[in-house]
Amino acid sequence: MRLSRCFLPVMKESPSDAQIVSHKLMLRAGLVRQTAAGIYAWLPIGWRVLQKIGQIVREEQDRAGAIEMLMPTLQSADLWRQSGRYDAYGPEMLRIKDRHDRDMLYGPTNEEMITDLFRGDVKSYRDLPRTLYHIQWKFRDEVRPRFGVMRGREFLMKDAYSFDIDEAGARNSYYTQLLAYLRTFQRLGIRAVPMKAASGPIGGDLSHEFIVLAPTGESEVFYDAAFEEFDWAQEALSYDDADGLKALFEKVSTTYSATDETHDEARWAEVSPDRRREGRGIEVGHIFYFGDKYSASMGLKVSGPDGSMVTPQMGSYGIGVSRLVGAIIEASHDENGIVWPETVAPWKVGLVTMRGDDEASVQAAEDIYKKLTAAGIEVLYDDRDERGGVKLGSMDLIGLPWQLVIGPRGLAQGVVELKCRRTGEKVELSIDSALERLTA
Amino acid sequence: MRLSRCFLPVMKESPSDAQIVSHKLMLRAGLVRQTAAGIYAWLPIGWRVLQKIGQIVREEQDRAGAIEMLMPTLQSADLWRQSGRYDAYGPEMLRIKDRHDRDMLYGPTNEEMITDLFRGDVKSYRDLPRTLYHIQWKFRDEVRPRFGVMRGREFLMKDAYSFDIDEAGARNSYYTQLLAYLRTFQRLGIRAVPMKAASGPIGGDLSHEFIVLAPTGESEVFYDAAFEEFDWAQEALSYDDADGLKALFEKVSTTYSATDETHDEARWAEVSPDRRREGRGIEVGHIFYFGDKYSASMGLKVSGPDGSMVTPQMGSYGIGVSRLVGAIIEASHDENGIVWPETVAPWKVGLVTMRGDDEASVQAAEDIYKKLTAAGIEVLYDDRDERGGVKLGSMDLIGLPWQLVIGPRGLAQGVVELKCRRTGEKVELSIDSALERLTA
Repeated sequence: MRLSRCFLPVMKESPSDAQIVSHKLMLRAGLVRQTAAGIYAWLPIGWRVLQKIGQIVREEQDRAGAIEMLMPTLQSADLWRQSGRYDAYGPEMLRIKDRHDRDMLYGPTNEEMITDLFRGDVKSYRDLPRTLYHIQWKFRDEVRPRFGVMRGREFLMKDAYSFDIDEAGARNSYYTQLLAYLRTFQRLGIRAVPMKAASGPIGGDLSHEFIVLAPTGESEVFYDAAFEEFDWAQEALSYDDADGLKALFEKVSTTYSATDETHDEARWAEVSPDRRREGRGIEVGHIFYFGDKYSASMGLKVSGPDGSMVTPQMGSYGIGVSRLVGAIIEASHDENGIVWPETVAPWKVGLVTMRGDDEASVQAAEDIYKKLTAAGIEVLYDDRDERGGVKLGSMDLIGLPWQLVIGPRGLAQGVVELKCRRTGEKVELSIDSALERLTA
Repeated sequence: MRLSRCFLPVMKESPSDAQIVSHKLMLRAGLVRQTAAGIYAWLPIGWRVLQKIGQIVREEQDRAGAIEMLMPTLQSADLWRQSGRYDAYGPEMLRIKDRHDRDMLYGPTNEEMITDLFRGDVKSYRDLPRTLYHIQWKFRDEVRPRFGVMRGREFLMKDAYSFDIDEAGARNSYYTQLLAYLRTFQRLGIRAVPMKAASGPIGGDLSHEFIVLAPTGESEVFYDAAFEEFDWAQEALSYDDADGLKALFEKVSTTYSATDETHDEARWAEVSPDRRREGRGIEVGHIFYFGDKYSASMGLKVSGPDGSMVTPQMGSYGIGVSRLVGAIIEASHDENGIVWPETVAPWKVGLVTMRGDDEASVQAAEDIYKKLTAAGIEVLYDDRDERGGVKLGSMDLIGLPWQLVIGPRGLAQGVVELKCRRTGEKVELSIDSALERLTA
């Protein structure tokens, strides 16, 4: 992408209404613009990050055997009356009347709708187990939206729903999503610690939150440093291995972690002091096993192996996709701007000419841009008519993993500069070597 | 994908409320389920088609230099008051009050919002021309939603917006999108004829609709058969070639096409009778050049080359992505079900064992499934415990381009059957030859 043809407005100053670093950086680096209280437009660079996060979430859901679909944003109030949640849900539910004066709502979650869809089409235990998910915009009418996309009103969520014939099956589905979550967050380049949680308005008795440490987090968290050493992606664990999944769950359950809501001082005292980690955290995922709460209230039954009718056991599994953009920035930035993990960076390489009026520099940049693009590498080429220092500042701000900088003096000696955004390390090397490193 | 682990409920009978063939087939083949009047959930197979269509639209927008972003579904009424459309828009606009009693709406289109975003960040003619687009859910509160996703209330639309410094630039942006549309529809496997249109509530004096012929279409259309012979994808036309784009526009404008709204009997009489095509059509895209209608009313100005302030010229460009699923089915089906164009088919190959209880058949199917998947071919493997005839019926209904059928008798002789869904042609050939054909 040529910056001169993109839409990437960067700001020198932080807007005064942004209180936390991720919100400030998302505005300054041109990821989002607020269009109404707690509602944001995703500009091209923000949209690229959002898509990359969504794609990793999708790939790990697919790998775990969940099936993608898409439910609509607006729902009929009647569905929510069947579960009893329409009246129970507070003013965070955005209630709407259509032109025929029918009660609708902007879905904050989809337990009722998926149960209704399942009820309409699934009749036999042979169609179980099944986990369905979608990645769709939700709305929660927060009384005081703040912190940018971290606590917005319209937000993108991945929510999955599992249906099993019995509790053992439902627990296996729960463990499957637990592993999928651990893998997902690791691939996103952040440490999200699973914590036993109270289940709140979803109901049920088994629930974990996934919390990213950040000073601006909403809740206080406590965990054993062992969580920092687990490598979930490397766990040679198959989703077909029920015993292995159960062992994973035991490992997560027996290693101490808690929010202030569930914190247990007695158990905390048993954790060796050098392994105690405390801080504030941001919730980026939440999973629930809630048994027959919705299937029973909404009359979902399937015929069992012996012909009798059975009420399926359900769970639901959320990831805050748009919130993750903020959470990743909270966890990964420095004084100059964002430092994207490579897996979610909007582009891998920023290509900069220090002198846009130097013919040789421009020619070299065009050549490198073509070669990297042809090799399938995502490049943002800053071809604007700006001073070199301004371009380098923008590149640090938007935080691409690599900067390839072309200056007239270096070029005369056949070298360019390659800078790693995370470490700040710069090396001078030939164009060919730089290309080789970036395409390796 | 193994059908036994998917969520693909097929129905033998057409639901009685479905009046047109695409709606019937979308319900029977398990693409969608209605969740409220004019609102649909996209089940896995429907979601796959929707994504494929969206991806082709996206690729052709990107190729034409448009930049993707994402605007939110809910908008502030204040934005629409600035353009004067809030009061002008009829009851099709879904008006919403949030918990603080602020006037909101579910966006039916985004001219106001994109103009506002542009106004906030673009200050100079050097940032023009620019075309931005998003693929996002919209809402129009139709008084009588019908025909399934063809005239639903919540629908997925691609809408692009162009900003230029003058009319010549704006016309070039318009011609660029015109070509992108012709290429897009051709890649989707449908013939969409561009027709000069009245511009309606968007405003402006230059506008084309893109119409797919189908007996259930809403409007009557007339066009010169020359449109059936143009090959837009093959046109050696570069988006950088302004003269070539203008010539394309002239070619489209001088070849007769019209809806009943714009039909001109005198010009029609000049078309040679054997080239006159008449029928009903479905609108799948609509493009508009409307000058400064929104930039002027909303106060968008940029500094021009000579320092004076200039009001940019704008256009907008819509494609009905969810409607296209229905339109493609209207244009491509037979008495047994859907016949997907290969570019948008949910899977390329349906793999069927005639006898699920025959060990050798199952082994062969598993082996073929692995090999095709490893080769990157999308396969739906019907591994259900059903009679062969039922499976074949389902495959015809859901309309994948190729069916690979394994029967015990053929297998004993080392052959399988490969059926082309579109032509019905069946050939017996060795497994290796079948794999070779499908992966070629």
